[in-house]
Amino acid sequence: MTDRVFNFYAGPATLPLPVLKEAKKDLLNYKGTGMSVMEMSHRSKDYAEIHEKATNLVHDLMGLSDEYKVMWLQGGASTQFYMAPLNLKQKNKPFEYVDTGRWSTKAIKEAKFYSDVTVVASSEDKNYSYIPKDISFSENAAFAHITGNNTIVGTEFHNWPDTPGDVPLVCDMSSNIMDQVIDPNKFGVIYAGAQKNIGPAGVTLVIVRKDLLNRVDENTPTMQKWSTHAKKDSLFNTGPCWAIYMCKLSLEYLKEFGGVKAMEQQNKKKANMIYDVIDHSDGFYKGHAEKDSRSWMNITFNLSSSELEEKCVAEASKRNLIGLKGHRSVGGMRASVYNAMSMEGVETLVEFLKKFQEDHQ
Amino acid sequence: MTDRVFNFYAGPATLPLPVLKEAKKDLLNYKGTGMSVMEMSHRSKDYAEIHEKATNLVHDLMGLSDEYKVMWLQGGASTQFYMAPLNLKQKNKPFEYVDTGRWSTKAIKEAKFYSDVTVVASSEDKNYSYIPKDISFSENAAFAHITGNNTIVGTEFHNWPDTPGDVPLVCDMSSNIMDQVIDPNKFGVIYAGAQKNIGPAGVTLVIVRKDLLNRVDENTPTMQKWSTHAKKDSLFNTGPCWAIYMCKLSLEYLKEFGGVKAMEQQNKKKANMIYDVIDHSDGFYKGHAEKDSRSWMNITFNLSSSELEEKCVAEASKRNLIGLKGHRSVGGMRASVYNAMSMEGVETLVEFLKKFQEDHQ
Repeated sequence: MTDRVFNFYAGPATLPLPVLKEAKKDLLNYKGTGMSVMEMSHRSKDYAEIHEKATNLVHDLMGLSDEYKVMWLQGGASTQFYMAPLNLKQKNKPFEYVDTGRWSTKAIKEAKFYSDVTVVASSEDKNYSYIPKDISFSENAAFAHITGNNTIVGTEFHNWPDTPGDVPLVCDMSSNIMDQVIDPNKFGVIYAGAQKNIGPAGVTLVIVRKDLLNRVDENTPTMQKWSTHAKKDSLFNTGPCWAIYMCKLSLEYLKEFGGVKAMEQQNKKKANMIYDVIDHSDGFYKGHAEKDSRSWMNITFNLSSSELEEKCVAEASKRNLIGLKGHRSVGGMRASVYNAMSMEGVETLVEFLKKFQEDHQ
Repeated sequence: MTDRVFNFYAGPATLPLPVLKEAKKDLLNYKGTGMSVMEMSHRSKDYAEIHEKATNLVHDLMGLSDEYKVMWLQGGASTQFYMAPLNLKQKNKPFEYVDTGRWSTKAIKEAKFYSDVTVVASSEDKNYSYIPKDISFSENAAFAHITGNNTIVGTEFHNWPDTPGDVPLVCDMSSNIMDQVIDPNKFGVIYAGAQKNIGPAGVTLVIVRKDLLNRVDENTPTMQKWSTHAKKDSLFNTGPCWAIYMCKLSLEYLKEFGGVKAMEQQNKKKANMIYDVIDHSDGFYKGHAEKDSRSWMNITFNLSSSELEEKCVAEASKRNLIGLKGHRSVGGMRASVYNAMSMEGVETLVEFLKKFQEDHQ
């Protein structure tokens, strides 16, 4: 497909080409049903099959036991910022958060509507350029919250903190869900907007350990309770069927690829190819994140001036390398290389960055 | 397209074929951008254009003045069931609801979390087979709420009630948005899940008169406030971009068709063709709704036995007439003939129903 670009957007982001081709093929007539998936009743047998397969693929790929409930919800991680504390609060217990940047800060803001929040660790002192080490949560917390990957500053957890006693660890994995093998049993709740690693925008994957579904005050508006959606397998009301279908296709692709382990290996390789260019550029490119906190998903770096950065983004764009501008709040450049970014895309970017340095040094 | 069926599902429902064809054509490469709309950053120029056009089309097609804010939210009408009362509540003022069936009842349940609810009119006494007349709201209400169309029982408002003073009328138009010309100035708030008349599942159109955006207590979780989304033109967080894109295509189709007025004429014609079969069947088919309350969108009827109904649904299905089974809570049959259902589909259904009667009388 020579007319496709390499899309380094931070999300919504590139999807695997075979997934898009499959969606296109069946768009007017899904598997002989005579209709598009977009036109199917969410109560129909054909849609139910898609829905169930998508859910089973999450269990399978992440190695989730039956102790966990997989849900497909709406409203993005921003909605889980309030749903998590609302559903997990306990009388006289504070929430404990790690602040690793913008998304943590936003999550903390919403949590404060439901209880006191203690920030137990933060990297704000160094412009969020690292993941705090030796994080320690207290036994009295209703839950502990971390942001798995930080798209804006380009840092990521690779070692997951422990929580004491039965304090559940809650993680926003929007931008690194299934980018690496994790032990799911470490987590009480994992939530992730789909639009970076597992599908298009419009659906949020929410995984909750089943015992935690009972914490919520029954006297809560129906749609705000995880238990509502859990009881009905995410079919309490009409869900975002098309987005879930796209997640199914994308997860099937991941499985065929070899699963999360194979993807983790490719992700490390892809990220290291770009970090190598940065580290061997004699300071022409300066990485933002500290080395041991580097994200495999969002590679953030600066050039010597914002003019040169702009030029670099513009020239990359001419070579079909799209979306390399840093987040508007921090500037610089950012290459988002989610699961669906191909090796070819990364190779092309690496060649371009080397050439750009040669031409502008 | 001989391999397409006629889809009478109550929603998600059939979409216009030219809309699906357009979506298919551009699925791998939208207008030369080299990417799918599903892969575009929600902050990109290309997506911004789609988003704005969709919003402008709603204004244009519904004749909305600048006094109204059009928003694209997530979570379905079920989420608006709590968001409307939460955003509109006023101290010591009750909410007033008209109960015309399941969806009203669900809305009332959520409203009770925020204030006292008075049901000022109900058709529960006759199995919700009619729309109450001479509805009277009181001046003291924070707002008045109606359900525009009732998918399960097949009734619809064609004369919209007045509200006294400055009491805003709030309407759930999920299943009849843009099926008829309305005077939007009668309404304070209109909300509608897209998946029946204007697009696929996964996005909810919410229209709020701007002065009502200021009622909400600022001390409310960010995502629960309409004002959050209004201020950012529904781009506070990543929205359901693909679903909004499909709405844009579908609304463009409606505009080319001649707008809501032309669609209303066709809707009346389509509905009457089916009601005529019922009314001239000598009781073989029995319509559920009283004649002056009949929905143009969902035509509900019974045969003499559930066995015969099952047979009718099964035989229709063999002729590619899909989704004619009544809602599981009431049984019988239901033909949902939303804006996108073609005349050809209705003609085929009418012929089938006549023939089925001949064969089984």
